[in-house]
Amino acid sequence: MQALVLERKGELAIRDIDLPLDLGENDVRIRIHTVGVCGSDVHYYTHGAIGPYVLKAPMVLGHEAAGTVTAVGAGVTNLKVGDRVCMEPGVPNLSSRASKLGIYNVDPDVSFWATPPIHGVLTPETVHPAAFTYKLPESVSFAEGAMVEPFAIGMQAAARARISPGDVAIVIGCGPIGIMVALAALAGGCSRVFISDFSAPKLAIAAQYAGITPVNIGERRLADVIAAETEGWGADIVFEASGSPKAYAGIFDLVRPGGALVMVGLPVEPVTFDVAGAISKEVRVETVFRYANIFDRALQLIASGKVDLKPLITGTYDFKDSIAAFERAASGDPSDVKLQILMQG
Amino acid sequence: MQALVLERKGELAIRDIDLPLDLGENDVRIRIHTVGVCGSDVHYYTHGAIGPYVLKAPMVLGHEAAGTVTAVGAGVTNLKVGDRVCMEPGVPNLSSRASKLGIYNVDPDVSFWATPPIHGVLTPETVHPAAFTYKLPESVSFAEGAMVEPFAIGMQAAARARISPGDVAIVIGCGPIGIMVALAALAGGCSRVFISDFSAPKLAIAAQYAGITPVNIGERRLADVIAAETEGWGADIVFEASGSPKAYAGIFDLVRPGGALVMVGLPVEPVTFDVAGAISKEVRVETVFRYANIFDRALQLIASGKVDLKPLITGTYDFKDSIAAFERAASGDPSDVKLQILMQG
Amino acid sequence: MQALVLERKGELAIRDIDLPLDLGENDVRIRIHTVGVCGSDVHYYTHGAIGPYVLKAPMVLGHEAAGTVTAVGAGVTNLKVGDRVCMEPGVPNLSSRASKLGIYNVDPDVSFWATPPIHGVLTPETVHPAAFTYKLPESVSFAEGAMVEPFAIGMQAAARARISPGDVAIVIGCGPIGIMVALAALAGGCSRVFISDFSAPKLAIAAQYAGITPVNIGERRLADVIAAETEGWGADIVFEASGSPKAYAGIFDLVRPGGALVMVGLPVEPVTFDVAGAISKEVRVETVFRYANIFDRALQLIASGKVDLKPLITGTYDFKDSIAAFERAASGDPSDVKLQILMQG
Amino acid sequence: MQALVLERKGELAIRDIDLPLDLGENDVRIRIHTVGVCGSDVHYYTHGAIGPYVLKAPMVLGHEAAGTVTAVGAGVTNLKVGDRVCMEPGVPNLSSRASKLGIYNVDPDVSFWATPPIHGVLTPETVHPAAFTYKLPESVSFAEGAMVEPFAIGMQAAARARISPGDVAIVIGCGPIGIMVALAALAGGCSRVFISDFSAPKLAIAAQYAGITPVNIGERRLADVIAAETEGWGADIVFEASGSPKAYAGIFDLVRPGGALVMVGLPVEPVTFDVAGAISKEVRVETVFRYANIFDRALQLIASGKVDLKPLITGTYDFKDSIAAFERAASGDPSDVKLQILMQG
Repeated sequence: MQALVLERKGELAIRDIDLPLDLGENDVRIRIHTVGVCGSDVHYYTHGAIGPYVLKAPMVLGHEAAGTVTAVGAGVTNLKVGDRVCMEPGVPNLSSRASKLGIYNVDPDVSFWATPPIHGVLTPETVHPAAFTYKLPESVSFAEGAMVEPFAIGMQAAARARISPGDVAIVIGCGPIGIMVALAALAGGCSRVFISDFSAPKLAIAAQYAGITPVNIGERRLADVIAAETEGWGADIVFEASGSPKAYAGIFDLVRPGGALVMVGLPVEPVTFDVAGAISKEVRVETVFRYANIFDRALQLIASGKVDLKPLITGTYDFKDSIAAFERAASGDPSDVKLQILMQG
Repeated sequence: MQALVLERKGELAIRDIDLPLDLGENDVRIRIHTVGVCGSDVHYYTHGAIGPYVLKAPMVLGHEAAGTVTAVGAGVTNLKVGDRVCMEPGVPNLSSRASKLGIYNVDPDVSFWATPPIHGVLTPETVHPAAFTYKLPESVSFAEGAMVEPFAIGMQAAARARISPGDVAIVIGCGPIGIMVALAALAGGCSRVFISDFSAPKLAIAAQYAGITPVNIGERRLADVIAAETEGWGADIVFEASGSPKAYAGIFDLVRPGGALVMVGLPVEPVTFDVAGAISKEVRVETVFRYANIFDRALQLIASGKVDLKPLITGTYDFKDSIAAFERAASGDPSDVKLQILMQG
Repeated sequence: MQALVLERKGELAIRDIDLPLDLGENDVRIRIHTVGVCGSDVHYYTHGAIGPYVLKAPMVLGHEAAGTVTAVGAGVTNLKVGDRVCMEPGVPNLSSRASKLGIYNVDPDVSFWATPPIHGVLTPETVHPAAFTYKLPESVSFAEGAMVEPFAIGMQAAARARISPGDVAIVIGCGPIGIMVALAALAGGCSRVFISDFSAPKLAIAAQYAGITPVNIGERRLADVIAAETEGWGADIVFEASGSPKAYAGIFDLVRPGGALVMVGLPVEPVTFDVAGAISKEVRVETVFRYANIFDRALQLIASGKVDLKPLITGTYDFKDSIAAFERAASGDPSDVKLQILMQG
Repeated sequence: MQALVLERKGELAIRDIDLPLDLGENDVRIRIHTVGVCGSDVHYYTHGAIGPYVLKAPMVLGHEAAGTVTAVGAGVTNLKVGDRVCMEPGVPNLSSRASKLGIYNVDPDVSFWATPPIHGVLTPETVHPAAFTYKLPESVSFAEGAMVEPFAIGMQAAARARISPGDVAIVIGCGPIGIMVALAALAGGCSRVFISDFSAPKLAIAAQYAGITPVNIGERRLADVIAAETEGWGADIVFEASGSPKAYAGIFDLVRPGGALVMVGLPVEPVTFDVAGAISKEVRVETVFRYANIFDRALQLIASGKVDLKPLITGTYDFKDSIAAFERAASGDPSDVKLQILMQG
């Protein structure tokens, strides 16, 4: 089968590769339609590793995917041939302690597409457990279906935040994940979301959405803006989505007494954390690792029209041009949010 | 001072009455601008009592009010003369055990406007604690300010429900409170809200809002609709807002395993409750009594544009015509949601 | 294999019966040591049914069991031959929506021992998924291991109650489950537990435990006792464990403003529920269906010595006398809490 | 009135000082009986400041106090003359936004005894709001009453942790606060508490209590102990009570997937925080600032016998010897937990 293979750091190839397609009792076979290019895919391409995950053998990239069911295992009841679907790329051991608790995202034995040594799905066909395959509502396109995975991270952040209706939130960092968090926070009950970044083009993309207020921290201090907008009280929730250690300086000045900080961005190095600042306001801190039990509710929000992800798809490539898509993604144009690859012409 | 006085069951008068206007250290004096007519005001008019609260002496009606600050006590820091405000009509004993816990709504010593023997505010001026007086954002009109009180009940229901982003909800009962609950649930994170009633005109009002699906239970079984729309899983949250004991028959068929029922409507008599039905799905049941710590977040949602209450104001009267407003409210036209009275011409 | 078989309502036999013992990849084979007699076992014996579960064919009884692992499937990593274990009698579909959420107890597809048509384990050997088989700490005996199942219901009630440290609780009903709830509530953070019943012998058993105060409601009004002991404030949590519809009369008089009612007992008929009483205190109501993710924490509490279940084992029988054990259990001696059957001499 | 006055850093005097004793409507007057010496009192004595709180004028020390009501204001209903009581040393503005939310501990306007410039209560008499004065149950001595304040910090930590019954906890740091946290965690629902320190004498004090396992981290790696005791899963909750930045190195190795870290100790400097470590287990982090709504539940646990603080009172001094008590406290004997001063002979 053809696939986009990361041969080694810096070297991509579209070529044949042997991938298992055995259909287990609880599996479905899926013809892939659309695959999004994620920052992590690009990072494996440019750096060959993310933290402890190191590329040691050729690996197929891609984990944001939608497609059509072409076969179902004997035990599958929730899906049928012809269903349009999107897929959750992480598959846990369902018998594990974490999975039994409903937090299968932190099961140490999760297999996750395009995380070494697990192959991704930039390839025409795959087999996946039906339990982690979600039917697209009629009104949701394949392109939107392939956006569910990155949006699910924003949704997990919104869920972990335990938003109370009307909360005021801040999102630090206006990259793709920051925007997803902002949209999920708004759809999830916040009245207003301030999003901060140094990049005017990135902020312009977020500012398209009603309810999101961009703050260019090259021009204004975020703490000043928040103090002015909340009469000195602070935001109910601060989402850190930049992954920059610098974001932690003075971060508790932004939070109201009894508010929350949600850590989404993954700094490469440990950060300097102001314990006294957190304690004096008795701040709750939540952390976000991928998602669990989110895909179905993400789809509901997209289908209902409360969340519109289409403006974030800033480029679409045919599979044969997928290396060009990766080159563009690697170039880091601030006007780009999400590039997608079509597996079927 | 002039006021709309309920002399006794069935008898209203606009007349002079002595009302205390002493300004305490932590109080503000307010010139009332707009007052909404609430179902409870009407019920005191038509029945002379609500449950244990019985009218025993003439009482001024009205508790949904907005106005302008005309004086502030020496200790007030959050407001100044000229501020446009709305007021929380219940004032607890701040030293009570319930208030210290943050649940001041269930303080047994709450004084609540227009609940015997406490006078309401259908009168040109009142004095109120600054702590329960909320500044209207610039974009929020007096008419909207006077809608905050009924909307706050919907918000309290949404807060107690502990919505997870993307939840599917049902609201049983499409009266004014049911609509408020539906709007708060949507703004508070639900992806879709089904609202049920027998009255087509009431459902038509709710159906104006994107995200709300009306279900006429004179025509279709609600359980069938929900099963079809959720693939048999059920709704995450059911809000009972009709107050009808009949609504409890089969109510747990509507809820998903592990879902929630939120009781908002107040049945006059005890209901028949299917404990086994609740237990077999391990349903959580929440109850809603007025609201606490809600006005500020309700205002944020109105100011941000996420919630538009203006279409629900179906009639506006001058103070001199306020008895006519009560007559119309008492007539129970299903196309009416909220009538308001202007205290200032 | 020999087993205690309920042939039909009212007829028990110890006889050979064919039971599947195939060892799947994720299963363990267990030599059963001790099995407790549960009220539900007795109810199938005396009535032939519990609610919708009707005995239609001979069924092996018994679901409170401990034993020793004699074989492990190829995929099992958490257990080895020779481990002393107890078993969770309900096995869900791990791929179901409820299981993925961590609430596998409400998965509609759960198979539960000794619930028609699923056989129980009053038999010398069984096969069970390793994920629902729990190693006994060294200090926990087989007899205690077979008590984990009924204690788990009390623990689930304590978990659902969301006890805050120092809470005052009431348990209505001093049967075996009521006592389990009381012990779990105390171990789970309550400062005091009041337990009410009409039966002095039942109350005497509960009163052995420090922290539990018996209230004989044949002699005193429970509401009076609670008002006196809490200065009129009420209990933080009321657990209804009697299953009697009468318990619901005036039940909200017992709860503090903002407190909780936890429904554990299963009334045969719908109850009369005072919605207004619940709402006026904004009471939260939780329900309890079996348990999920509880066995390991129940074992921790027993092993640590915080919970001593041994005084509740009021009789032990050899397997050959198990019909006599059921006769005694069916006689309903109020001094009996738990009878156990030894499968190995 | 006589009082123990901290004249300036390093200089204590027992001398007359003018203290206001006006009895407001909602106040009580209290004859002080016992006052505990807190580490913060000692720190003001030895350093003249704690973080932003700097001693600029003579200040009476002492904030852990019990005594007897000698007069009540006209509006007081919960207390009467002769009641034995303990007092919550922080008094918020009850009208503030934080107080209305029930989190009055983080009200920026709290006045707290013996925190500059507010006087403490090492003096024979004081006046205090009745709402922050708690009646001692009959079985609770003055000495225990004066222990409620430090225990309340442990209780707040246990409350913020949201313990689920049977949780396994770790407390890092075996000083007075660490021990209080350990006792509160056990009483609050944990099955086992591991407490770590370098000091064998401190650990010996904690080890007196059933359920607490001391870990001398001069001899063993805490992570190794926890891995062995939890089969590699980790603790449900880690309480950081040492205030040492070093405690944060590798701290997430101790926590189970989906577990919690509770920050109690206040490091002087920012700490190095492993965001990636926290995120990969999706750890929740809670912080603890003093306490709110805790004194009554702390008293319930002491009165019920679930918590015995008496072994922690390691020395008692007459008021005339109170400077000696401070000298001993300042010497930092690891066998000392709490020294108390008797105001009445």
